[in-house]
Amino acid sequence: MNEIRTVEAGKHLGEMVHLRGWLHNVRRLGGVNFVVLRDGWGTIQAVTENDADLAPLAGCALGSVIGLAGLVVANSQAPDGLELQQPAITVITPIDTPPPLPLQKRQLNAALPTLLDHAVVANRHPARRAVFRLAAGAMAGFRATLNARHFTEVQTPKIVASATESGANVFKLDYFGRPAFLAQSPQFYKQIMVGVFERVYEVGPVFRAEPHDTVRHVNEYVSLDVEFGFIDNHFTVMALLREVVAGIFAHLEETCAAELALLEAALPAVPPTIPHIHFAEAQELILQRHSIDVRGEPDLSPQDERWLGEWAQAEHGSDFLFVTGYPMVKRPFYTHPDPARPAYSNSFDLLFRGTELVTGGQRLHRYGDYLAALDRAGYPHEPFETYLEAFRYGMPPHGGFAIGLERLLMQLLGLPNLRLATLFPRDLTRVTP
Amino acid sequence: MNEIRTVEAGKHLGEMVHLRGWLHNVRRLGGVNFVVLRDGWGTIQAVTENDADLAPLAGCALGSVIGLAGLVVANSQAPDGLELQQPAITVITPIDTPPPLPLQKRQLNAALPTLLDHAVVANRHPARRAVFRLAAGAMAGFRATLNARHFTEVQTPKIVASATESGANVFKLDYFGRPAFLAQSPQFYKQIMVGVFERVYEVGPVFRAEPHDTVRHVNEYVSLDVEFGFIDNHFTVMALLREVVAGIFAHLEETCAAELALLEAALPAVPPTIPHIHFAEAQELILQRHSIDVRGEPDLSPQDERWLGEWAQAEHGSDFLFVTGYPMVKRPFYTHPDPARPAYSNSFDLLFRGTELVTGGQRLHRYGDYLAALDRAGYPHEPFETYLEAFRYGMPPHGGFAIGLERLLMQLLGLPNLRLATLFPRDLTRVTP
Repeated sequence: MNEIRTVEAGKHLGEMVHLRGWLHNVRRLGGVNFVVLRDGWGTIQAVTENDADLAPLAGCALGSVIGLAGLVVANSQAPDGLELQQPAITVITPIDTPPPLPLQKRQLNAALPTLLDHAVVANRHPARRAVFRLAAGAMAGFRATLNARHFTEVQTPKIVASATESGANVFKLDYFGRPAFLAQSPQFYKQIMVGVFERVYEVGPVFRAEPHDTVRHVNEYVSLDVEFGFIDNHFTVMALLREVVAGIFAHLEETCAAELALLEAALPAVPPTIPHIHFAEAQELILQRHSIDVRGEPDLSPQDERWLGEWAQAEHGSDFLFVTGYPMVKRPFYTHPDPARPAYSNSFDLLFRGTELVTGGQRLHRYGDYLAALDRAGYPHEPFETYLEAFRYGMPPHGGFAIGLERLLMQLLGLPNLRLATLFPRDLTRVTP
Repeated sequence: MNEIRTVEAGKHLGEMVHLRGWLHNVRRLGGVNFVVLRDGWGTIQAVTENDADLAPLAGCALGSVIGLAGLVVANSQAPDGLELQQPAITVITPIDTPPPLPLQKRQLNAALPTLLDHAVVANRHPARRAVFRLAAGAMAGFRATLNARHFTEVQTPKIVASATESGANVFKLDYFGRPAFLAQSPQFYKQIMVGVFERVYEVGPVFRAEPHDTVRHVNEYVSLDVEFGFIDNHFTVMALLREVVAGIFAHLEETCAAELALLEAALPAVPPTIPHIHFAEAQELILQRHSIDVRGEPDLSPQDERWLGEWAQAEHGSDFLFVTGYPMVKRPFYTHPDPARPAYSNSFDLLFRGTELVTGGQRLHRYGDYLAALDRAGYPHEPFETYLEAFRYGMPPHGGFAIGLERLLMQLLGLPNLRLATLFPRDLTRVTP
């Protein structure tokens, strides 16, 4: 007898098959028994009018691990158009306590704290785990797009010697009696690795000790980082980012159709060229369209971003918009200025449906520029010694970007809280489960 | 004119091409000037008898970033059988300080501390970076093998609430004024995720606060973790591990031939079935072959492993050997005992050329077994609450393994020190570069 996964049943119509998984649901309706098995990919329903077929389940709570053999039969009334008949059930791991959440319900209606407290079990719900299968698909699409363009994957250290990049918001560590820190991004190391491989990416955890309790912050998340050399300016980086975003969505479409359907999520079209607008023009546009004068502000507010997103949709029919040239004063010290307008930078944000999704730009690449930038920022040179060595011994013009995996999922799926896009979120009050 | 990478030059014989990279070497030999450019993938040599062609390099130290145009010509005397003629050089980023290590030499002969102190630059040497391109290839081969078998990639949290798995050797963290710890492995989370996806893997950093200063220890490394459900016992896990190891090497052969040749590394053959020997039989074998009685010892020594590796080679012609059934007393509390001989476990080590490369096994899966195992080990239940929830609500028989990426490279390449397989090693004395 064929051992199959639930999602393969359609290829075995008329055959006896065997499946293993979790007892997802048991119901009795008009003299017919329905037993639903959940495996790692989907669910399948078995039907029988013979109560004795269910005898092995005596004392088994939902969530028990079972084997289920049966004949695959097409039935337009059944979920996915098929069901198992003549079921033979065996019990692998009997469970006596039903799960703390109703996993068998189509919608997992539970308060957020309950979902998070019981994430170990809640993530078993088909709609919850679909989110994380999309996460896996997004990582795979990210890597595939970059591998095809001769990028090399790196894994850079997460324990670092100094809290260099932005100072305060880092976690401090006892490293054999000395202080060390958790990397808040692989920024410095990915730039260093451009000196080795030219084109690099990294998928890994980043750690932010930001004391913010919002729906858009967690303190550990997965960052999809890219950095590459021999660019003309930030527009080279934006062109690659467009390919990466399109590659991620193409991969999701190809590999995660069932998950997208379950979550009723529509993948956005990525225009061949994503429209772009300069920061200063964006502020002018807001004045014209909304009679609010934000000129002179050094950054865009969430409301500004929403307005720009609406404009991109109305003007260009695009879910995506690049805003370029953010003021240098709001960007990190390694940001490359716009040679023509040095108060503005060769940087960008990518807005997706009116919210920032990705930040990136061109970096400084000359050693002398770094020394000057550190001096301007009032930073001592010594903690940056490792980083500076890369520039001292030769670096090409380069740039890159970082995509927050959870934010991508949150915005793609319209989730109300970033924690719902995170397997086991870490926030101000939560280090478990 | 075509912009190409060095490694693509062979496809452009007779064409004018343009390359960008680092000034790797300049030599003058018998009236002929040789300029070598290094890009992210290889090197290429340009030749000219006309000194004026080199004029742009005036004042440029090795390591300067340059553009190089020229005609690709076959020449059996040249490295890789081709060279650039009629070179036109442009300078992109001039450097005035030559690198602290002779990157242009075929062998980067430098003391280990120098290599590590200047890893930012040393990793640019073709032989050094080849190691890390193999690392990328190994990760890609690992993922490809598992994706083809319906595994789902997960990213589990690295900040954890309690130092549960083995107690002392964890890094302690200040998490918003409360103590937290760095995960020393994704063991608990990958098992939890078997409850969600059945088959999971993770590639990510692990943190070990072991105060060991040896050639085989670093304190942060990359772990290739696998866990999956519905196994028969540890032999199911070993069969998958064989596929994964073979898949990694096949991928390296396919994608990293140049790097393997540069490092003069031969990929081992992975037998269709890797030979295996039970721990107790292994001790008997050592007594017979070497007249040393290690029976009763709870573990194998490095010498024991070398002897067993020699035996596997002599008896089975295999670089690989599974040792199964390690005594329960030396394995973690979640290890599944051998039902027939409960003092031994359903676990294994995979020896590669006489050294342990991978550890794995079957885990307990019944909730009651976990409660009993914790009690036997004298552990309180409360810090394991998250972990226990997975078993309380239903887990199948499952198991897995973890491959240390750096150890795999060290043993494959015969490196004398694990630090040489690590981009930026973290050890007792080193948190920079």
